Amino acid sequence: MSEYLNKFRQHVDVSSDRGLHSFVKSLSCASFQARNLSRCVEVYRQMLGDDEAVIFLGLAGALVPGGMRKVIVDLIRNRLVDVLVSTGANLYHDFFEALGYHHYIGDSKADDGELRKAKVDRIYDTYVSDAELVLTEERISEIASRMESRVYSSREFLEHLAGELDDDESILLTARKEGVPIFCPALCDSAIGMALTQYYVRRQGESRLIIDQIRDNFEMFQIKRDAVRTGAIYLGGGVPKNYIQQLTPMLDVLGVKGEGHKYFIQLTTDDPKFGGLSGCTASESKSWGKIAREGFSATAYVDATIGLPLVAGAVLCDCSGGPARAKRIFCWERDNLEEIKIE
Amino acid sequence: MSEYLNKFRQHVDVSSDRGLHSFVKSLSCASFQARNLSRCVEVYRQMLGDDEAVIFLGLAGALVPGGMRKVIVDLIRNRLVDVLVSTGANLYHDFFEALGYHHYIGDSKADDGELRKAKVDRIYDTYVSDAELVLTEERISEIASRMESRVYSSREFLEHLAGELDDDESILLTARKEGVPIFCPALCDSAIGMALTQYYVRRQGESRLIIDQIRDNFEMFQIKRDAVRTGAIYLGGGVPKNYIQQLTPMLDVLGVKGEGHKYFIQLTTDDPKFGGLSGCTASESKSWGKIAREGFSATAYVDATIGLPLVAGAVLCDCSGGPARAKRIFCWERDNLEEIKIE
Amino acid sequence: MSEYLNKFRQHVDVSSDRGLHSFVKSLSCASFQARNLSRCVEVYRQMLGDDEAVIFLGLAGALVPGGMRKVIVDLIRNRLVDVLVSTGANLYHDFFEALGYHHYIGDSKADDGELRKAKVDRIYDTYVSDAELVLTEERISEIASRMESRVYSSREFLEHLAGELDDDESILLTARKEGVPIFCPALCDSAIGMALTQYYVRRQGESRLIIDQIRDNFEMFQIKRDAVRTGAIYLGGGVPKNYIQQLTPMLDVLGVKGEGHKYFIQLTTDDPKFGGLSGCTASESKSWGKIAREGFSATAYVDATIGLPLVAGAVLCDCSGGPARAKRIFCWERDNLEEIKIE
Amino acid sequence: MSEYLNKFRQHVDVSSDRGLHSFVKSLSCASFQARNLSRCVEVYRQMLGDDEAVIFLGLAGALVPGGMRKVIVDLIRNRLVDVLVSTGANLYHDFFEALGYHHYIGDSKADDGELRKAKVDRIYDTYVSDAELVLTEERISEIASRMESRVYSSREFLEHLAGELDDDESILLTARKEGVPIFCPALCDSAIGMALTQYYVRRQGESRLIIDQIRDNFEMFQIKRDAVRTGAIYLGGGVPKNYIQQLTPMLDVLGVKGEGHKYFIQLTTDDPKFGGLSGCTASESKSWGKIAREGFSATAYVDATIGLPLVAGAVLCDCSGGPARAKRIFCWERDNLEEIKIE
Repeated sequence: MSEYLNKFRQHVDVSSDRGLHSFVKSLSCASFQARNLSRCVEVYRQMLGDDEAVIFLGLAGALVPGGMRKVIVDLIRNRLVDVLVSTGANLYHDFFEALGYHHYIGDSKADDGELRKAKVDRIYDTYVSDAELVLTEERISEIASRMESRVYSSREFLEHLAGELDDDESILLTARKEGVPIFCPALCDSAIGMALTQYYVRRQGESRLIIDQIRDNFEMFQIKRDAVRTGAIYLGGGVPKNYIQQLTPMLDVLGVKGEGHKYFIQLTTDDPKFGGLSGCTASESKSWGKIAREGFSATAYVDATIGLPLVAGAVLCDCSGGPARAKRIFCWERDNLEEIKIE
Repeated sequence: MSEYLNKFRQHVDVSSDRGLHSFVKSLSCASFQARNLSRCVEVYRQMLGDDEAVIFLGLAGALVPGGMRKVIVDLIRNRLVDVLVSTGANLYHDFFEALGYHHYIGDSKADDGELRKAKVDRIYDTYVSDAELVLTEERISEIASRMESRVYSSREFLEHLAGELDDDESILLTARKEGVPIFCPALCDSAIGMALTQYYVRRQGESRLIIDQIRDNFEMFQIKRDAVRTGAIYLGGGVPKNYIQQLTPMLDVLGVKGEGHKYFIQLTTDDPKFGGLSGCTASESKSWGKIAREGFSATAYVDATIGLPLVAGAVLCDCSGGPARAKRIFCWERDNLEEIKIE
Repeated sequence: MSEYLNKFRQHVDVSSDRGLHSFVKSLSCASFQARNLSRCVEVYRQMLGDDEAVIFLGLAGALVPGGMRKVIVDLIRNRLVDVLVSTGANLYHDFFEALGYHHYIGDSKADDGELRKAKVDRIYDTYVSDAELVLTEERISEIASRMESRVYSSREFLEHLAGELDDDESILLTARKEGVPIFCPALCDSAIGMALTQYYVRRQGESRLIIDQIRDNFEMFQIKRDAVRTGAIYLGGGVPKNYIQQLTPMLDVLGVKGEGHKYFIQLTTDDPKFGGLSGCTASESKSWGKIAREGFSATAYVDATIGLPLVAGAVLCDCSGGPARAKRIFCWERDNLEEIKIE
Repeated sequence: MSEYLNKFRQHVDVSSDRGLHSFVKSLSCASFQARNLSRCVEVYRQMLGDDEAVIFLGLAGALVPGGMRKVIVDLIRNRLVDVLVSTGANLYHDFFEALGYHHYIGDSKADDGELRKAKVDRIYDTYVSDAELVLTEERISEIASRMESRVYSSREFLEHLAGELDDDESILLTARKEGVPIFCPALCDSAIGMALTQYYVRRQGESRLIIDQIRDNFEMFQIKRDAVRTGAIYLGGGVPKNYIQQLTPMLDVLGVKGEGHKYFIQLTTDDPKFGGLSGCTASESKSWGKIAREGFSATAYVDATIGLPLVAGAVLCDCSGGPARAKRIFCWERDNLEEIKIE
């Protein structure tokens, strides 16, 4: 027999009701996206076993409206991620729910003209009340008006926002409690940004808080610079992926030696063949030095609402006796990262 | 609050290791393809609860090489499907494994020139030995040469093929034992077809067995005609989907009153927007009468290697105390379906 | 500069209204699917310039209902393809239009329940009259009843069907006139198949015509065996692609030396990553020997209704002075291919 | 005949070499994405014919590296768009080429480890020199260091950057000359952002220029507020699409009456079914009021490197005698939009 033929297929078996941990493991002997999904969990475990790795999680797509909020909170709470980069929308919808509002089961084929009349907004098959969104934006605007007039990174601003919340199921608040920094490089491009525009208009002429994007870059740069090794998990693409991917090129620009991410996990429905960064492969990223040459990577092409609970569920099984991994503590002095302590 | 906002989102929770049954159920409160997948299980349960329904399963794509053989066998063995329509490839690869050969874990980025030299064939990330394929084809050709020279439907021929096997994990053999007919309308378009071409060439000039496609149609037509209600499950699209979908139009052509499938479940990575039948919706099918106007349908856009084990695993949980559903027995007299008995 | 950087990008220019020929050529300096599309034309030209190549065209998807009938006819008429393999649906819809019926501009968001009541069938955004389909099936059934009772290949049967037509814009009739054989391996899986089932039921008990799939295989095998070199163009995947791809493995099974297709062109919206044959790459095909190791291949991921007119338009430009390529004449004696003459 | 069947299909004809204008028009009688593409041009024409409409263009994906730079410049030069919103990457790559550097024809299957060694970066099938990127970033950093230390919108900053260029084929410079404002809400998430981080680090402690995202929002808000009607063209999704889509909700938050975009054109390879904003439909947008209830919309699912030249080429035909449409002049006084003049 050829040397290529050395590990033969065991077929997936679901004849007894097994847990997610065991289920996802059994997919490793299947093919196509099932095997890729299983491989994502393998890479995740390798990364968690690396005592010096700092793990970035990029969130794009309507994950919070889509029902993934608790899963993300559990990843943070169990120290399975260290730094979050998100679209504004996911953070906004988290804040919205933390105020006691809800997303509702809807219908992807609804009559959107009728919904408009009823002041109901649709996200594919999910509904949300327009009036509650307006109240949420008013609340953010009001919080901003009570903040000190100075230049902030999005991280600082979001930490402040989280401090106003009282909801254990909130991503923003859990991250604040666990010391997980959250960056939102395109904060303006969300309802949080719209709320800050309201605040901007009301403050017109007066000194006010300013979110400085480049300060975000500086803070992220320091995390990458000081971390011994890094890993990245991407749910969807968009700005969060590109932003975490550009960290090694940024080291280069700033004349700091450093290697690309050692671990790369991606759940996406996008594709490399249309050339966008959202769909690009770990391999392409190697040409840029964004991913380490000897890195470990896995990409599963699957809707994150299916893929994320499976991957997270499999990994969370290892945490039943409490977080298995040391906390990474980021010691900030304004925009300076003084140290990353591993507790 | 608007009447549209009546059922609010519970977030998916994977913090404790739950079984597939409970997991897939919890996806019903998520959005996007997670909810669609959960809906597939709901429709499947409705269909199983219908005492008079006959369930068709359409198999396309490399499901057997992809590790789904045991899942499909368990569906048959537990009487969760009644009629199978498949591409030739899936049946061929089942036969191949039943002879003791294997599919192997491979690499989707392998050097195909090197594989060719090593006589190893690649199916995305799966390998198979070219030499073993040739032996398998030789075996099928030899079986054909021992069969009576007459006109067969693909169902009859495949039943005969199954009779030569001795492997409890075989789809062909399990279906034969359980009385589940298998149709393969494009049998020529597979390695089974290539084997029969070898037989054809060897028999040149002599009388021989002939697979009559139209006889297949006649047999399928009778099942649809005699079933009180029908349901269809599609893994991928292709000929199996179109073939099961055309049953009601065929009733029309033959002047028999009848309704479209009442139940429609589809796991696919194709899409309606490019116009092909593989990706078309249950709704489009209603315009043709292929699906009953008051039918129940669900489509999840996900790779079947992920979606099928989840759906099957959830449904199989209900069968832990033995098959929960009566067997449908098809009483054939040559190409005539004399009766469908529900045991 | 690195040796990798040797041909720099010229940007696509559409500031003056240029013809398709020049337009598609200009895409060769773009990236992503634009370049791939341009590459399809390059490979097509190489193939047309090969005096000994026989060109197969595989048709899947709703191309005729989708408005591609005239483009396909022009390819045949200008001798730009030599052998056609099609789904039954495309041939049926060609026959349907040849009887004077039409496809109509529709709406993909129509109410399918209302359409059903109005006896209008929907193909995404295209409508067709149910009553006219029934008349067409009746006509096919009637033609079959006048044919000699014997075993046919689908090629022979379709040639006979074409002979009943009188429409210069028909694929079936043009192919017949130009001596281009058409194979339909899954003929039963179409409205032609349903018509033949009507005929089958009416003839019950009496001798009748039988379409022998394996005879199709034998005829296709001989074309591959006798052609010095071969090329394949795939519009979509499905049975037509698999059927043309299995030709070299079939040579192997039959103990005939031969090489895979030298030219491979594919327009598809499917993808390799889900493991099905419809989406598989030319490279994967090399591991099987389906494609020659030193072959030329191009795949563009684009809806065929956009990609085909661009590719065909570009190639047809070269034919303004009449067909530039010699006809391939297939000399059949029943199921024996006696010779392929190059006129 | 049913009233549904009132406009029958003419088949697409490419037998004579026709211009893009005529070609795209002929696709209106086809189906699927061909018809959708043709519909994009129809909506574009309606929008251009609206004397009071302001047209936003959102650019996402690697359009400039992909060869679309000249097409975008021609749209600006011919006054076919009024406001640009872009990812940082497209503007960076435009700036890069304006310095005389190039993108190179590459290979999507290249060995990325080798490319890394050769200091060549890959974007799917396109190469770029790492060293030239570093020089470009240095240049941007240097320009920033010469700018006045104050708070800027991205529009102001990009106008300043454009002022340093001397290349008629530059998007940045052409937009500056034509008075077309460019916004880049996630400027930090690009090599421009990395260059500004270099500048930030060098200026540490000193006063410096700050890009204020929320000022961008305020400026965009005013354009939407003052425009009588608006239209949006999306190439890909991402931040540019979301940012232009959130304009009407922002009016609501700021208590200004206003309607959603009247015109909506989208070329995308994303899809609504995964729930993200990038793929969402015009209809879903109506539920939010982002699109006017009586608006005109068209979406074609096609790679923008194919779709954009076709749409732009068709529309540019109308401009052969010079721009057919009046210029929109935005009169800024710092962050205040004093007036939109229609020349």
